[in-house]
Order: sequence, then C-alpha cells, then structure tokens
Amino acid sequence: MTTSRPRIKTYDRIVEQSLALFNEHGERNITTNHIASHLGISPGNLYYHFRNKEEIVYQIFLRYHRFITERLAVPQDRSMNVGDLVNYLDTAFEAMWRFRFMFYDLPGLMARNPQLQADYHQFVNSELQTILESHFREFIRLGLLKMELEDIAPVSVNIWLVVKFWFAFEQTARPKAPITEASGHRGVRQVLALLKPYVTPEFLPAFNALQHRHAAE
Amino acid sequence: MTTSRPRIKTYDRIVEQSLALFNEHGERNITTNHIASHLGISPGNLYYHFRNKEEIVYQIFLRYHRFITERLAVPQDRSMNVGDLVNYLDTAFEAMWRFRFMFYDLPGLMARNPQLQADYHQFVNSELQTILESHFREFIRLGLLKMELEDIAPVSVNIWLVVKFWFAFEQTARPKAPITEASGHRGVRQVLALLKPYVTPEFLPAFNALQHRHAAE
Repeated sequence: MTTSRPRIKTYDRIVEQSLALFNEHGERNITTNHIASHLGISPGNLYYHFRNKEEIVYQIFLRYHRFITERLAVPQDRSMNVGDLVNYLDTAFEAMWRFRFMFYDLPGLMARNPQLQADYHQFVNSELQTILESHFREFIRLGLLKMELEDIAPVSVNIWLVVKFWFAFEQTARPKAPITEASGHRGVRQVLALLKPYVTPEFLPAFNALQHRHAAE
Repeated sequence: MTTSRPRIKTYDRIVEQSLALFNEHGERNITTNHIASHLGISPGNLYYHFRNKEEIVYQIFLRYHRFITERLAVPQDRSMNVGDLVNYLDTAFEAMWRFRFMFYDLPGLMARNPQLQADYHQFVNSELQTILESHFREFIRLGLLKMELEDIAPVSVNIWLVVKFWFAFEQTARPKAPITEASGHRGVRQVLALLKPYVTPEFLPAFNALQHRHAAE
C-alpha cells in the first residue's frame, strides 16, 4: 500500500490542478503540457497517469457527478425540511461554480469527448431528472412549495437549463467580461426567480434569506 | 436598375439556401463550396457576393434581427391586447425554429465571427431586453399578467435564456436525436411554463389555447 501512495497523490493533484486551470482559462486553451508544467512534473509523468486530456476531463466529470449525487441525496434518517431546500439550491450554485469550465461550452466539450457525452447524458436524463422531481414532490408535500404536479417536470427542466447554460449565457451577453463568482451569484438569482412564484408563506423567510445571500454585489 | 436585378436575386438565394443548409446540417459542417454546389453556381460567383461564410452568417443574423424587431414592435395605432401576447410567444417559437442553426452552438458561432458577436451582444443587451421588459409592463398594465415589477427583469432573462439555449439543451440531453420541429414545440412549452404562474384568469383561456397548440405530438 505504501508504494502506491505517491502515485495516488500525483493522480489527484493532476485532476485538481487541471480543474483549476480549466476554470480559469477554459478547457480548450489548456494542454496536457500546460498541466504538467503547472504541476512541475514531466509530460511523461502525466502520461503515466492519463493517456490524454479527455481522460482528465472525464475524471473531473466523475467528481462533479459524485458532488451532485452526494449533496442532493434524500436524507435516510429524517424527513426533509426548509434547510434541505436551501442546501440544494446552494448545491446548484456550488456545482456551477466549482466545475464552471464544463458549462462554458458544454456542447463543444461533449463533441470532443464521446465517453463524457454518453455518461453525462445518462446522468442528467435518468438520475438527475428523477432526483430533482422527487425533491420537488417532497417539498410540495412539506408545504414549502405550492405547485401542480404537472408543473414539476417543466419547472425542473427550466432550472436545470438555467444552471447548465448560465455561464454560456453570460459569455455571449458580455463577451469581454471574465466569468467571476458574481456571475455564479447572478445565475442562482435566476434559479430563485424560477422558484419564487411557487414559494409558500411558510418558506418565504428562508427563501428571502437565500436571495439576500446571493444579492448583487 | 434592371441590370442589378439578377445580382440581387443570387445574393438573396445564397442567403436563403445557406440558412436552409445550416439549419439542416449545422453551420460548422457547411462550406461555401457546399452552398455554391447546392445552388448550382460556381464558387467564383458566390465569392463575387460574399468574401466568406462569416459574411453569409452575418446577413442571416441581420434577417433574424429584422424578424424579431418587426414582430415584437409595439403597435402604434392601438393599445395592446391578448392577441399580441399570443403573437409574441409565437414569434419566440418561429424565431427559434427558422434560425435554429444559430442556437445549436451559439458560443462557438460567436467565437468564429467577431462582428456577429459585437452586434448580437448590442442587440440582446440593449434592444431586446428593453423590448421584452416594456412588453411585460404593458401586459401587466392590461391585467393579462400579474407580477411584481422587480420580477420582470429576472423572468425576461430566463425566457431569453431558455429560447437561446433550448436546442443546445436538447442536443446535450439527446445527443443522437436530430433537431425537429417537435424540439421547437418543447422549447415553447418550457417558455410557457415560465409564464404560467403569472397568468391572470382573464388571459387563461388564450394561454391554454396556446399551450394546446404546442402540445406534445
């Protein structure tokens, strides 16, 4: 076990530093040579762990997947409450922000990475859609949101669409401006605007606090 | 005047047929040679009218711009009514569908065409945002929609975001499926879902008829 330790560490460092570089410069502008040089390792050492950049991107996707599914999991030992809805909305923001390079140009990223495309597709269409809709039903049952059941699917699709394309929207709307944390906060405000008509008086104080937390800087 | 006539006709045919080819195959997959061959003209004849593909794309953008601004114009000779709101929503669908190639990968298209990027940016951020928000205020004044004034801006941004990225969303969600008119109808249903919580009883019959018109095939 001891001998494999440095290998695991380098592997994780490559994934983490690649994510940071992709977020800052866009995945398209970063090569495996940039990543190796940034980490102070040889390109050969990087290729020992990853055959190409797409494999690194795919590992980042797996972390994104784990982040979302862990954070959006339904609690097993208690019923859900207002705090859970707030946490889920914060998760949307954090997932967007931590893994933001994925959302700069998702169709382009997918086109260059067929394995990512297949798994992403599977994740969003089966897992994520199911998770979002069951959460909605639970929050309606708890009286935090009030909406007709037939509206759950279109509203959760709209939420997902805004989360997914927010940074691309900002980039086409403000081509010269860099993507900052403020862009992420604007994105969450757009998601909150989608939910606002369905918020019940019981949830309103927590909802307003959430809006306030993401208010315009 | 008579001598310039055939020139104008070829010019327009190039723009129209390019739009059709881009919509069907994606702009990235169509070259000026494809366009010339499709029209049965020589590449030299095409280059007489357009220096490159970007110039054709830009002319299509100008038509898109004209289509939107003409169709969304505030009537000068009468006050607005339910029919106008229905027409505006239909315009969103028609603009998406007629010019759909622009929305397959908008960030990529912009990156390859700086003039388009600058003008599109100007159009959306100044003109379109102003038009959408003044329409919202008018429909609220007429009692067709009921919403707080502070919600107009985020809701109109969400509408624009859904319209703009719907086809890209469908392509990442169903990578194997072609973009069909049914995709456009699904997009309009998503826009209607955004408006639904704000529809007043007075507007509900017309709104339901509109939902029905775009119902799932």
